[in-house]
Amino acid sequence: MARASLRENLIDAAVEQFHARGYSATGVKDITDAAGAPKGSFYNHFVSKEALAVVALDRYGATRRLEALLDRSVPPLTRLREHFEFLRDENIEGEFNRGCLVGDLAVEVADHSDAVRATVHDSFQAWSDALAVAIRDAQQAGEVARTLEASTLARFVLSAWEGALISARADRSARSYEAFFTVVFGVLLR
Amino acid sequence: MARASLRENLIDAAVEQFHARGYSATGVKDITDAAGAPKGSFYNHFVSKEALAVVALDRYGATRRLEALLDRSVPPLTRLREHFEFLRDENIEGEFNRGCLVGDLAVEVADHSDAVRATVHDSFQAWSDALAVAIRDAQQAGEVARTLEASTLARFVLSAWEGALISARADRSARSYEAFFTVVFGVLLR
Repeated sequence: MARASLRENLIDAAVEQFHARGYSATGVKDITDAAGAPKGSFYNHFVSKEALAVVALDRYGATRRLEALLDRSVPPLTRLREHFEFLRDENIEGEFNRGCLVGDLAVEVADHSDAVRATVHDSFQAWSDALAVAIRDAQQAGEVARTLEASTLARFVLSAWEGALISARADRSARSYEAFFTVVFGVLLR
Repeated sequence: MARASLRENLIDAAVEQFHARGYSATGVKDITDAAGAPKGSFYNHFVSKEALAVVALDRYGATRRLEALLDRSVPPLTRLREHFEFLRDENIEGEFNRGCLVGDLAVEVADHSDAVRATVHDSFQAWSDALAVAIRDAQQAGEVARTLEASTLARFVLSAWEGALISARADRSARSYEAFFTVVFGVLLR
């Protein structure tokens, strides 16, 4: 396998394994096995599991469709609703297994690794910023009240989403998503 | 050490170790060491680490002051605000380390253990029910609009809290708590 493509495979395998098993429960060998690579090849590409987690977080972030939140060809409230519908449907299709990898690593690793914590912070910040763009657009279009700053609403809605995902995993039901959509789109963003 | 008190010490040690290290990263020996007990004594009291996690969750839940949410000698919005101030201050005093043990185990273990998942579910349900009592009291006192059902608001506010805690750990700042208090007490619960 070419060196560059092995590295890519290791990153993809790490996203998959960390997401499915959790960080501590995933060994380097689980990642190399999933990538179809010999265990010894790991350290040719990454200095540690921690260093790979940082790269894996960026790769996962690129799948979250943040760019659609900035697409001004779509009405801002539609962008926001479709964003959370995408995330909800993904979790329901996965039968409520797995959470958000960013939130998972925040919970499991942030207290123990400054590098992972900083990357989780940056991921949440980028996400919150993209939500704030759409919320600000909605405020300027007169679709959402300007009572609160868009950045405060964005941060709050992101927290509420991460928490709803936790509840859904515990419940194995969409009940917390129903509460999320009812409150966010029925009360907060209007 | 008496048998009963050793069991109690193991439970306390498990709450502490799971909370500080995470579930997967905590070995049985970490728990027995923290309890000052020989490793072999563990299985006299618990069939597995998983079985101990279920008991540890109940013990942790008993420290969450849910009973204060039901105390009708205190105005309902005051009960709600003091509840989240208690949780916020505890996390700030811990310098943003550690989350909520219920949420932590939901993220790390719920997908892998039905017993832990069911206990997490029950813990969130008891918490959401207690919040709903206070919210319903506030609605009946005319302090909170009756537009939404108390149970929907309770579930949503609980999700928003769990998510705010995740953000705070990633940020090592109280910014997500500020957004939580601003939105929950400035917009939702009024």
